[in-house]
Amino acid sequence: MSYQGLNSKLLDEAVSEFSKLPGIGRKTALRLVLHLLKRDTDDVHQFGNSIIKLRKEIVYCENCHNISDTPICSICSDSSRDQSVICVVENIKDIIAIENTQQFHGVYHVLGGIISPMDGIGPGDLNIPTLENKVGSGNVNEIILALSTTMEGDTTGFYIYRKLSKFNIHISTIARGISIGDELEYTDEITLGRSIKNRISFLEK
Amino acid sequence: MSYQGLNSKLLDEAVSEFSKLPGIGRKTALRLVLHLLKRDTDDVHQFGNSIIKLRKEIVYCENCHNISDTPICSICSDSSRDQSVICVVENIKDIIAIENTQQFHGVYHVLGGIISPMDGIGPGDLNIPTLENKVGSGNVNEIILALSTTMEGDTTGFYIYRKLSKFNIHISTIARGISIGDELEYTDEITLGRSIKNRISFLEK
Repeated sequence: MSYQGLNSKLLDEAVSEFSKLPGIGRKTALRLVLHLLKRDTDDVHQFGNSIIKLRKEIVYCENCHNISDTPICSICSDSSRDQSVICVVENIKDIIAIENTQQFHGVYHVLGGIISPMDGIGPGDLNIPTLENKVGSGNVNEIILALSTTMEGDTTGFYIYRKLSKFNIHISTIARGISIGDELEYTDEITLGRSIKNRISFLEK
Repeated sequence: MSYQGLNSKLLDEAVSEFSKLPGIGRKTALRLVLHLLKRDTDDVHQFGNSIIKLRKEIVYCENCHNISDTPICSICSDSSRDQSVICVVENIKDIIAIENTQQFHGVYHVLGGIISPMDGIGPGDLNIPTLENKVGSGNVNEIILALSTTMEGDTTGFYIYRKLSKFNIHISTIARGISIGDELEYTDEITLGRSIKNRISFLEK
């Protein structure tokens, strides 16, 4: 559907830009843009500016590849966190999810993707060499692999395990089991089997 | 759900700004922002700029109150369009919808809302005086009321009809091919096009 009715180039441009975003079509884009027109000029200026600044000024932490405002991110430079425990994740969203649990007090390492031959992503496209260097420095006691329970996640986990097993460190993976609130009878056999095999002391849970 | 994990002020700011948009929560906002981070810097700059420019530079047509880049919009200044037939609509989205039918070759008048006592919107909040002036100038032959088939639309139509019936013009309304209760902007093009072509005298409806 074309919009001949958009007799304003400015409007048309803004709608086109919004509809480039994932999951936003031209109708939604138009709705968002018309909403912006009703807002305060300063407000909208701030919105536009925050987008420009974000892309121009944001950097990735030199240590863990997390998003950051400074060369070393606030997690890596936090002296109260255990720098000898590194949690390996696929992307930044995983860090946010884990941070929200408030259960992890080590540091992170962002791979920037996952090994997926179908999408043409190999080990060379991921931040694995910097992880090896970190572990090789001798200051790391444990690597926690917090990857998705998919074929790609398992492949990536195995690859990293093989690369790091020569070092004298503990390599763990986050527990696979039944999600809180899930019913036993509807859980798939592999998950259920693993959760029985990897059972823990009742008082530990 | 808070996002302690957003250890970047720039990221946090952009996410906050996006989540001010209607229908966009923090999760979606984060997804959009992370998408922007993967895009080209120039691309993102253009996006941010289009938003700022839009709000700062857009004007409303002095004649019909449509969105415009110039004091008089491209529809009003188009000499191939019949300036003596004015289609009265609630908002800009309705113009876009009608223009897409390619069935109307007159000009528009945007009310900027609809009489709705429940929302505290009275006739005084709408662009009705400028419509009266236009009709009073004597160059108008017909007014087409293209309002939603809701109680508010009917009320607004009646109010305008009463205001304009003293002038020697034809007042019509778009045909009720549209089912009662439907909103104009979501009507399919064929129905909407037909309803403009088959408009009937206001009192006949």
